[in-house]
Amino acid sequence: MDRPPPTTGTLAPEEILAFAAELAEAARPIARAYFRTPLDIVTKADESPVTLADRAIEARLRGLIEARFPDHGIFGEEMGVKPGAAPGDGPVWVIDPIDGTKSFVTGLPLFGTLIAFLDGGVPVVGLIDMPALGERWTGVPGEACFGAEPARTSACRSLSAARFFTTAPDGFVGADAVRYRRLVAQTALRRFGGDCYAYGLLASGHCDLIAETSLQPYDIMALVPVIRAAGGVITDWNGEDLSLHSDGRVLAAATPELHAEALAVLRG
Amino acid sequence: MDRPPPTTGTLAPEEILAFAAELAEAARPIARAYFRTPLDIVTKADESPVTLADRAIEARLRGLIEARFPDHGIFGEEMGVKPGAAPGDGPVWVIDPIDGTKSFVTGLPLFGTLIAFLDGGVPVVGLIDMPALGERWTGVPGEACFGAEPARTSACRSLSAARFFTTAPDGFVGADAVRYRRLVAQTALRRFGGDCYAYGLLASGHCDLIAETSLQPYDIMALVPVIRAAGGVITDWNGEDLSLHSDGRVLAAATPELHAEALAVLRG
Repeated sequence: MDRPPPTTGTLAPEEILAFAAELAEAARPIARAYFRTPLDIVTKADESPVTLADRAIEARLRGLIEARFPDHGIFGEEMGVKPGAAPGDGPVWVIDPIDGTKSFVTGLPLFGTLIAFLDGGVPVVGLIDMPALGERWTGVPGEACFGAEPARTSACRSLSAARFFTTAPDGFVGADAVRYRRLVAQTALRRFGGDCYAYGLLASGHCDLIAETSLQPYDIMALVPVIRAAGGVITDWNGEDLSLHSDGRVLAAATPELHAEALAVLRG
Repeated sequence: MDRPPPTTGTLAPEEILAFAAELAEAARPIARAYFRTPLDIVTKADESPVTLADRAIEARLRGLIEARFPDHGIFGEEMGVKPGAAPGDGPVWVIDPIDGTKSFVTGLPLFGTLIAFLDGGVPVVGLIDMPALGERWTGVPGEACFGAEPARTSACRSLSAARFFTTAPDGFVGADAVRYRRLVAQTALRRFGGDCYAYGLLASGHCDLIAETSLQPYDIMALVPVIRAAGGVITDWNGEDLSLHSDGRVLAAATPELHAEALAVLRG
């Protein structure tokens, strides 16, 4: 890859990451308080369940960001784009308060809070926090961590040896379903239902390949710095860098070789 | 249901359950020691990955059972039937040391240790232990628990409101795939990859319906006392009680009404 190294403008990545961790700490008790308790589940137009926790966390994190960095943009799942701060311009925080809402409402501890910091549209700092499991992955340029330990992708270089994840295998439709089936048929092992947790497992070398579709920008942005700094490759299904304007298709792999092989199969 | 209440012969269910918990305590540190460490993964004829942990746990639990109840039968995933003790006769322990081996080898904490006690072929005591999560469900006649708390299934009575789980949606083939798709199309929400954990979530009211196929007796027996004592219904796809000789198809539901509706759809 010959992309220029991402920057965080006048702020050090460490300062951004420390603040992202503060946000995650603020989100955890809210998520835990609502987890496995009866909830009013409302249904949005896309029919994914959304919880009260989702909204409470986003409101809290937006308040903290506005207090600390009043000139930064904010783009969240629940409340959209902060007025006056267009994503893609200067510094922007992209938040998914509860990624994996289906896990959340079925008692599965695999939901996460995703926090990304973008500069000029490029995700520079990413954080994947698992409130119920007490686990966290972080990524800044050059360093990915699982808790306090470095995170490193596996050395898997071929589809035939790859442990594969996708969240919802029934979510692929039409031509995507054909491309998906062609890909998974060549993998060593398939596992479903991971949401953001699968990307953490990939960063730590426990699985090797992820292909998904229909993701939203707030599902994706936090993953990019983690996977890249851990040694992996993450792009859309055309091999292009992911951005706020990507089409929702994601391909993440432990090594460039595995990514290239998977991309060739997806392209047919 | 007009089946006779199950018995544990001359042993009190509480004594059996306490010993099953001792077994689970012995298994936990072994499972945790191997989890997320590099493993030699061997491939059995059925191509499911089996880990060193699987074998180490079963050997340990067999040793404990033989020391405590030398005349009891043992049926485990790895080492088969204890010579001289035919399953289906007197008291038999049925063990799956690591249920969810695909979770185990991909770093997902959703694998469990399953321990069942059968008398005359009927599962009377069941235990679902989640070593990495530190969670446990137990079932004896009349009482299901999650840790020290009672476990109770949800009140969901209709498919259209049901939160549905299955482990591997790509595992249904031929006519089963048709029946499966007809069923899931009518559910409110689908989630994949649960293995035994899904049955614990069902017992605690966090999901409502599970349909699976290709399960083995050691995957199934421990689930039955937990689901029944929590208020749910668990049978094969013909509505028959599950036994060591079942065909591997399982349908579990939070209420008799939901079970009946799902069964009717599966039967077409």
